[in-house]
Amino acid sequence: MLPIAVDAMGGDNAPSEIVAGARLAADEGIPVLLVGRPDEMGDTGDLPVIEASEVIAMDAEPGSSVRRMKDSSLVRAAEAVRDGAASAMVSAGNTGATMASALLRMGRIRGVSRPAIATLLPAPGTTPTVLLDAGANSECSPEWLVQFGQMGAVFATDRLGIAEPRVALLSIGEEAGKGSPLVKEAYKALAEAAFRQGAFIGNVEGRDLLTDAADVVVTDGFTGNVALKALEGSMKTLITALLTSMSARPEAIEAADVLAPEFDALYRQFHPDTYGGAMLLGVRGVCIISHGSTGATAMKNAIGMAAEMVEAGVVDHLAAAVGGTG
Amino acid sequence: MLPIAVDAMGGDNAPSEIVAGARLAADEGIPVLLVGRPDEMGDTGDLPVIEASEVIAMDAEPGSSVRRMKDSSLVRAAEAVRDGAASAMVSAGNTGATMASALLRMGRIRGVSRPAIATLLPAPGTTPTVLLDAGANSECSPEWLVQFGQMGAVFATDRLGIAEPRVALLSIGEEAGKGSPLVKEAYKALAEAAFRQGAFIGNVEGRDLLTDAADVVVTDGFTGNVALKALEGSMKTLITALLTSMSARPEAIEAADVLAPEFDALYRQFHPDTYGGAMLLGVRGVCIISHGSTGATAMKNAIGMAAEMVEAGVVDHLAAAVGGTG
Repeated sequence: MLPIAVDAMGGDNAPSEIVAGARLAADEGIPVLLVGRPDEMGDTGDLPVIEASEVIAMDAEPGSSVRRMKDSSLVRAAEAVRDGAASAMVSAGNTGATMASALLRMGRIRGVSRPAIATLLPAPGTTPTVLLDAGANSECSPEWLVQFGQMGAVFATDRLGIAEPRVALLSIGEEAGKGSPLVKEAYKALAEAAFRQGAFIGNVEGRDLLTDAADVVVTDGFTGNVALKALEGSMKTLITALLTSMSARPEAIEAADVLAPEFDALYRQFHPDTYGGAMLLGVRGVCIISHGSTGATAMKNAIGMAAEMVEAGVVDHLAAAVGGTG
Repeated sequence: MLPIAVDAMGGDNAPSEIVAGARLAADEGIPVLLVGRPDEMGDTGDLPVIEASEVIAMDAEPGSSVRRMKDSSLVRAAEAVRDGAASAMVSAGNTGATMASALLRMGRIRGVSRPAIATLLPAPGTTPTVLLDAGANSECSPEWLVQFGQMGAVFATDRLGIAEPRVALLSIGEEAGKGSPLVKEAYKALAEAAFRQGAFIGNVEGRDLLTDAADVVVTDGFTGNVALKALEGSMKTLITALLTSMSARPEAIEAADVLAPEFDALYRQFHPDTYGGAMLLGVRGVCIISHGSTGATAMKNAIGMAAEMVEAGVVDHLAAAVGGTG
């Protein structure tokens, strides 16, 4: 396998934690190369480096930054995939700029109208739920949502091993007639669409996201991003409230200590880093988008996920799934 | 104060729990009247009853049901407010039909384009966040979102005692340029709008809903409903996962017992019933919409909230706040 190109400069903890994560992945046998400023990377072990002199800031405007900063680590990482020097790119940097770099340098898969961000939501007791679009397209057409469903099904199979994924549409009621005009149109289009694997099962609601109600949930990038962040926020709020409430009584503090293994397991299960990152589906290459807060372990997981997706041949599967609709 | 009209037939636990809740409220000195089928209500104490022979089912189509079932408990409750026999209506029944009854029988406040559902989200350590629209209008114009902001500010003052509410717009980034076309337009309109109390403070994201970031968060009813249900679902999922994880080890079960007071307090803090229900803002009367799962205590709280809103004069305040824009 060609190496995974890691944007060493992207993320709140870059470059030190990113480089550390890359080295952990390499220790597990995954070929990795780093992209960025060599003199800022610290000890890279003997990992190969592609030099890039510029860094797109976390809060920079994505489109113009990517067009202007041609020697940025993000643009160079995407070019490495395009040029056959790397099999995938991974970044914890500016999400919009990561998408724009991948889109402009790798290009879209033939037939794909718009790439979408697929993210995994924990569903206790069962496989995670694939949510897309988690924020790439703040306005969508019904036809794009159909492609998101087809691409999400491929991802559910390749990433989670679900042979026949159940694809649902996010709405505000289960009946076909519920929701916004976009959702009503998308419902009809999804019901008529061809799926290479899996099938459209109808609407689900916000409360179904962390359950076994569906394997893939399709929505526009605005709603998806609001829902994803609402979920992340509620987890954080609830866990903080739990810890605070248990620190007021001596007996409670003792009991909480006893429960540490359970709390740890729960924390890991619901932490966004657990699944290694989101994937941009629809570009001609594997592009993994990690949280800005990614540390070494999460970066190692993201690189592992990238390698897994390359080995699974997900890009070819996406092309076949979307091409199948005409 | 005129009595609060309670739809005795609405909700999963109607009429027994609803009647029980109404009696609890009456015991606390709130004037209450019941609306529905007297022979199904059981022991109503000596509460007055407005007879209504029909019941709109929880899953019935709202608009046509309200138009057709003129002797339904929901329609009669709304008429009681319109006709000056009651000061407010409360129902745990079909949400859409509750809205339609209130809208068709009470009418809109002059100047209000569309009524919106305002709901309270828990924010640990501070006052709850008012979220609207939580589901009344699945498609909105920027101007409606401005009115939602003005009405939400009134509600935050009258319901939560916040003198100068901070009104924010739900988006997928804090900058003015972030979000869907609707959100970008609404941002401009909100920034230019006059507020009788409080002020527009910009965008917030999904992760800010359960925090002190804003007092009032404005969004369209589709996004609001998805976010609200995602939050409710995540609370339920996380609490279930927590309880499940603690039941596997004998030591953990013992420790969990010690923590029962903390878990109870947390459960109450995050339970949707805590705040008594949502309020339909913009109709000419107080209309409280309770969860379908409402039991006696939650119904008592909802009736208490209705009485509080009547005493505060919220409908007059809403009229003044929205009329102020032209």
